[in-house]
Amino acid sequence: MSESDSQEQVAVVLPDGSALEVDADATVEDCAYEIGPGLGSDTVAGKLDGDLVAKEQPVYDGAELEIITDQSEEYLEVMRHSAAHCLAQAVERHYDDVDLAIGPPTDEGFYYDFDNLDVDEEDLAALEDEIEEIIAEDYEIEREEVSIDDAEARLADEPYKLELLSEFAEEADTVTFYSQGEWEDLCAGPHVDSTGEIGVVELLEIAGAYWRGDEDNTMQTRIYGTAFEDEGDLEDFLERKQEAEKRDHRRIGNEMDLFSIQDVTGPGLPLYHPAGKTVLKELEDFVEDLNKDAGYDYVETPHVFKTDLWHRSGHYENYQDDMFIFDVGDDEFGLKPMNCPGHAAIFQDHSWSYRDLPIRYAENGKVYRKEQRGELSGLSRVWAFTIDDGHLFVRPEQIKSEVEAIMDMITDVLETFDLEYEMALATRPEKSVGSDEIWTRAEEQLESVLDSHGHEYDIEEGDGAFYGPKIDFAFEDAIGRSWDGPTVQLDFNMPERFDLNYVGEDNEEHRPVMIHRALYGSYERFFMMLIEHYEGRFPLWLAPEQVRVLPISDDNLGYAHRVANEFDDFRVEVDGRDSTLERKIRAAHDDRVPYQIIVGDNEEADGNISVRDRFEDQEYDVEIEAFKTHLEDEIEEQRTEPDFLQDE
Amino acid sequence: MSESDSQEQVAVVLPDGSALEVDADATVEDCAYEIGPGLGSDTVAGKLDGDLVAKEQPVYDGAELEIITDQSEEYLEVMRHSAAHCLAQAVERHYDDVDLAIGPPTDEGFYYDFDNLDVDEEDLAALEDEIEEIIAEDYEIEREEVSIDDAEARLADEPYKLELLSEFAEEADTVTFYSQGEWEDLCAGPHVDSTGEIGVVELLEIAGAYWRGDEDNTMQTRIYGTAFEDEGDLEDFLERKQEAEKRDHRRIGNEMDLFSIQDVTGPGLPLYHPAGKTVLKELEDFVEDLNKDAGYDYVETPHVFKTDLWHRSGHYENYQDDMFIFDVGDDEFGLKPMNCPGHAAIFQDHSWSYRDLPIRYAENGKVYRKEQRGELSGLSRVWAFTIDDGHLFVRPEQIKSEVEAIMDMITDVLETFDLEYEMALATRPEKSVGSDEIWTRAEEQLESVLDSHGHEYDIEEGDGAFYGPKIDFAFEDAIGRSWDGPTVQLDFNMPERFDLNYVGEDNEEHRPVMIHRALYGSYERFFMMLIEHYEGRFPLWLAPEQVRVLPISDDNLGYAHRVANEFDDFRVEVDGRDSTLERKIRAAHDDRVPYQIIVGDNEEADGNISVRDRFEDQEYDVEIEAFKTHLEDEIEEQRTEPDFLQDE
Repeated sequence: MSESDSQEQVAVVLPDGSALEVDADATVEDCAYEIGPGLGSDTVAGKLDGDLVAKEQPVYDGAELEIITDQSEEYLEVMRHSAAHCLAQAVERHYDDVDLAIGPPTDEGFYYDFDNLDVDEEDLAALEDEIEEIIAEDYEIEREEVSIDDAEARLADEPYKLELLSEFAEEADTVTFYSQGEWEDLCAGPHVDSTGEIGVVELLEIAGAYWRGDEDNTMQTRIYGTAFEDEGDLEDFLERKQEAEKRDHRRIGNEMDLFSIQDVTGPGLPLYHPAGKTVLKELEDFVEDLNKDAGYDYVETPHVFKTDLWHRSGHYENYQDDMFIFDVGDDEFGLKPMNCPGHAAIFQDHSWSYRDLPIRYAENGKVYRKEQRGELSGLSRVWAFTIDDGHLFVRPEQIKSEVEAIMDMITDVLETFDLEYEMALATRPEKSVGSDEIWTRAEEQLESVLDSHGHEYDIEEGDGAFYGPKIDFAFEDAIGRSWDGPTVQLDFNMPERFDLNYVGEDNEEHRPVMIHRALYGSYERFFMMLIEHYEGRFPLWLAPEQVRVLPISDDNLGYAHRVANEFDDFRVEVDGRDSTLERKIRAAHDDRVPYQIIVGDNEEADGNISVRDRFEDQEYDVEIEAFKTHLEDEIEEQRTEPDFLQDE
Repeated sequence: MSESDSQEQVAVVLPDGSALEVDADATVEDCAYEIGPGLGSDTVAGKLDGDLVAKEQPVYDGAELEIITDQSEEYLEVMRHSAAHCLAQAVERHYDDVDLAIGPPTDEGFYYDFDNLDVDEEDLAALEDEIEEIIAEDYEIEREEVSIDDAEARLADEPYKLELLSEFAEEADTVTFYSQGEWEDLCAGPHVDSTGEIGVVELLEIAGAYWRGDEDNTMQTRIYGTAFEDEGDLEDFLERKQEAEKRDHRRIGNEMDLFSIQDVTGPGLPLYHPAGKTVLKELEDFVEDLNKDAGYDYVETPHVFKTDLWHRSGHYENYQDDMFIFDVGDDEFGLKPMNCPGHAAIFQDHSWSYRDLPIRYAENGKVYRKEQRGELSGLSRVWAFTIDDGHLFVRPEQIKSEVEAIMDMITDVLETFDLEYEMALATRPEKSVGSDEIWTRAEEQLESVLDSHGHEYDIEEGDGAFYGPKIDFAFEDAIGRSWDGPTVQLDFNMPERFDLNYVGEDNEEHRPVMIHRALYGSYERFFMMLIEHYEGRFPLWLAPEQVRVLPISDDNLGYAHRVANEFDDFRVEVDGRDSTLERKIRAAHDDRVPYQIIVGDNEEADGNISVRDRFEDQEYDVEIEAFKTHLEDEIEEQRTEPDFLQDE
C-alpha cells in the first residue's frame, strides 16, 4: 500500500484504526480500491470524519474514513436521498412551473419541498407510479462538478436553488449536480449509481413546511416518502408506523382529555387537564417517595433569574440562543433552561462541613428552551418542560455510593414501567476541566458501580462532557422504539464556577463534586412515552379513572352511586347516562378505564357487584370488599395490567 | 341650612347621607361652620370624595364631605405630615445646602427625603431635640396660595421641588406653601394649626431611597419617624414595632434557613431551601386534601402564554404594565399574572353538559407581577408568587352551595392556624357587567351563605368588582396585625370573554358563572405571615425539623441514632457534635425545634428517652412508643403547640 512515488502522500485512518497512505488527490473510491478491488467496485459513498460524502470526494490527511457499500447501515440513507430525487423528477414530469426547494433523506425516509405545487393525497398514487417508472428505466445517476457561474445559468428558473447556490458560492468555487435521465438537481450527494438500484418507494403524506423552517418565509408543499430495499422491509415499516400512529400520544391525549396545546395559549406550552394532571401527579409522587427514601430534600427555585446567574454558571455563553431572555429596567432576566445553577446558588448560601455531605436537592423544576417553532410536537418537543431534577454535592470519595444509590432508583423506575434499558459510560474527552486525579478516581468509581450493577454496559471513550464523566440510559418501549433515558452526570466545573466549598476533617476548604441526575428526565417526554408505551392503557395506579360503575338500568342508579361511594378511595365515576349497557361498556372501553363494575337487579339484591376488565373478561358475584382489597394491592404493587380477573 | 341668597349654590353629601347646600365658593371649613360653630372651630382638615384636603379647600357640587377634627381617625395622618415638616425644618437648621425632596405621612408615621445630606443614626437624637424645640416654640402653621411664577422664585434653590412644581403647573395656576417660623415648603397639606399641636415625635431610622422610587434616579437620604398624640401611644407603638421586628420573617427565614433572595439570582424571586420547602409542602398537602375532599381536580398550566390569551381575558388591556412581556419571533408572550385565563382555556377546550357542572379546577399556580424594585421585601412583596388557586364553573343556581363549601374550607384553614378573621360582602358597583337578574340572584345567594355561616360580616355596598360580587376575608395574627385574607369572587365577565358554555337540560347553550377562590391567597404572603405569627415556632405538623435527638455524651451517640431510626416517620435529626448537653439544648431551642429527645446512660440502660419541649419542660422515663403515638396525634390533629408535656 505504501509504494511511494514522487507524489505527495496523505494518510487516512480506517475503522480498524490502521492508517492508509494514499496520493494527496485520492478520492474515497480510490482509497477503497487501494484496500481491495472488490471493495472499490462495491463503493457507493464514503464517510469522512463521520460525514456522509460522495465516493468522488477527495480525502484529506488525518481523516477517519469509512467506505459505504450496499451492506452498510448508511446505504439506506443514500438510497432514500436518490428516491427523493425520483420524487422531484416525477413531480416535474406531472406538474409545470414547480419550484424545487430541498429534498433530504430522514431517519424514516425522505421528503422533498416544492413551491407552486398544487397537489393532494389522491395525487400521490400517480406520482408513485411515475417513480416506479423512473426506477424501471434504470437511469444512470451522474455526478458533475460545475462552476458557480455555470450553475447559476442552469438554475435560472429555480429561485430557491439560486438562494442556496449564493451561499455555497461563499465557501467554494464549484458545486455538484446530480442528473438522472432528463432531470438534474443541485446536490452534494451521495447517491446510488442508478435509479434501478432503488428498491421500493412509498409516498406517505403531504404537509406544509416553511422554506428553511422559518415561519417568516413562504409556506411550501412537502411530500414525505420512504424507500426500502424490498417490499418486506417496507411492509414491516408501515406496520410499525401504523402501530406508532395508533399509539400517537397527541391523539390519545385528546381522546382521554389528558392535555391540550392551544393556539391562543401558545406553542409548545401544554396545559394539563385534570386527567393528565392526575397521571403526572402519580408520577411526581412516585419519584417523591423514591427521593425521600434516598435522603433527598426538596427545594423550590424561581423560573426566572437575573442573567447574572447564567453568566456565573456559563449557560449564558453557551446556551443563550435557546433561552427566553428579556429586560426589566436595566437588568436582563431569563427563564431558566436548567435547574442546576439555582441549586448551586442554594448550596452556596451556606457554610458546610464534611459531616453535612452528601447534600441532595430535588425539585420538579420547570425549564424553558426555545426550540424552533416548526420542531414543536405534542409533549415530545415543547418549550416548557419539567425535569424531576436532582443535584447532589458530595465529597469525591462519596461518588461511588451516591451513584450506586441513583442507579438503583433509576432501575427501580424503569422496571416499574416494564421498560428494557441499555447503559453506557461516557469517559473523559480531550478537552476537559478537572485534574487527572479527580477524573481517574471518578471514572474508576463509576466503572465499579456499573460492574457491580450486573447489567451489561458500553464504554463510550471520550464521549463524556468536558466537565465530567456520565452514565447514560436508553430504554425501549413496548413496540421496540428506543428513547433517551435518564442520565447520571458528574460535574467538576459548576462547583468551580460557583466557588462551592465544604470544610474537611482537616479544617481546610475543599471543593465538592456535583452530580446531576434525573430519573424520568423530562416529565413531558416520559409522559408522552408512557402514553404510547401503554397505548393509553395505564396501569391501575396511574389510570386517571380507575373504576367506572355501570348501572344496567336507571333502576340501579341509586345502587350504582352507593357502590361508587364504597370505592371513594379510588378514582371512580358512575356512568349515569340514559343508555344501554352495551354502549356504556363500549364507552368505558374507549376511555381505557381498567375496571368496570356492572350493577343490575341481581347485584343489588345480593349486595355485590360484577367486575369487567379492559380485556373484556367479566366475573359475577364479586364481593365489594374482595375487589377493594384487590385494587389496593394492584395499586400498591404498581402492577402494569389489571389482573383481578386474570389472576383467578 | 338652605337659606338661599342670590349666590349660586352647590350641595355636598355628608357622612350620614344628608345633603348640605352651601355657596358655590364655600370651603371645607365654611361647610363645617354651616353644620355648627363648634365643628367649624374644631376643623383641622376635610375629606372630599375620600381625599384628605386642607380646610381651606373649596368644595364642589355632589362631593362626599367629611370634616376632620382632632377626634377623627385621620387626624394622626395630618399631625404626622406636620411632624415631617418639623423634621425638614430641623434638618435645615443643622445642615447647610440640603435639597428637599418629599415628606409624606405613612401608615406608621412619616418620612422626609433629602439630597446632599450626610447624616447617620447617631445624629438623630440631635434632630429629635431640635424637633422638640420647634414644637415647644408652637409656630403657627400658615397656608398660602402662591402663583406658579412666585413659587418658582421661592424654590430657586430646590431642584426637586422645582421638578414637582413644573408638573403641578400643568394642572393649576397656583400652588400652596405651608410655613412655620423661618421655614416653608411647597405642600398641598393639610396640616395642624401650629407646631405645638404635634404630640411626641420619634425618629426611627435612615435609609436610602431613589427619587420618585425610580432606580435610574439619584439615591437620596430618607429619614423615617413617627408621631403620636402622647408618650403612651408612642410607647405602645414602639413595643409593637419591636415585637414585629423580633418576628421579622426575613431574619427568622435566614436563621431557620427557610429561604433566600440573592443578588445573583434576582430581586423578588425567593429560593426555597429544604426547610422552607418542607413547610410549603405541608401547606400544599393540607390544601390538596381539602381540595380533594371538596371535589376539585388539579390542573397544570404554563407560566408563559402567548399574549393572545391576555387580550382575550382583558388582562392585557388592564394589567399590561405589571406583566413581564417579551417577544419570541413575531409573537408576544407574557409570564402569567393570574391563573384564571389558563383555567378558562382548559374549560373551553370541551363541551359540557349541565350534568358535568360544577367543574372545579385547582392549581398551585405561580404568577408574576412586576412590582417596583424598591417595593420588594422578603416574601411579603415579590415578583413571583404561588396562589393556591381554584376556579369553579357553575350553573347560576349552584352559586350558593359552592360558595358555602368554599367558606367552610376557608374557615377550616383559618381555624387550623388559630387566626381570628373578619368577613365582608362587596356588592354591585355602579359600573358592572351582567344582567340585573344574575346580580340579584348572586348577591342573594351570597348573603344567604353569610347569614347561615353564623359569623358576623360587613356589607360594603358598591365595592364589588365590575364583573361580580365577592366575599373578602381579613385575618388577625398573634400580635393583632390585620392581613388581607382569602377571597371568594364571582365572575360574570370571563365566561363571556371566553364564550364558555354548557348545554342545559333544555338542550340550549347556557353561560356558566365562574368563581375565583383561594384559601391561603399567595403561599409567599401566607408563609411570611405564619413565620411572623408563630415567630418561627411552627406547629409540629409544619415544623421543618420536628424532633432532635441529643446524646448526653459521645458514648450515647449510637443509642441516639437507634432512637432516631425509631422516629424515622418524623423529621428527625441527631445532634452528634462534640459539645455539651447544655449547648445542644440551646441550639435546638434557637432552631425552634418543637421537641428534643435527650438520651444518656440511664435512658440507654432502660431503653427509653427523656423528652424536652420548646417551653423548656422536660420529662424522664418516657417510652418510645408512647411518644411516637403522641407525635402522630399531634400532627394528625394539627395542634398549634407541642403539648406532650403540657398535657400531663
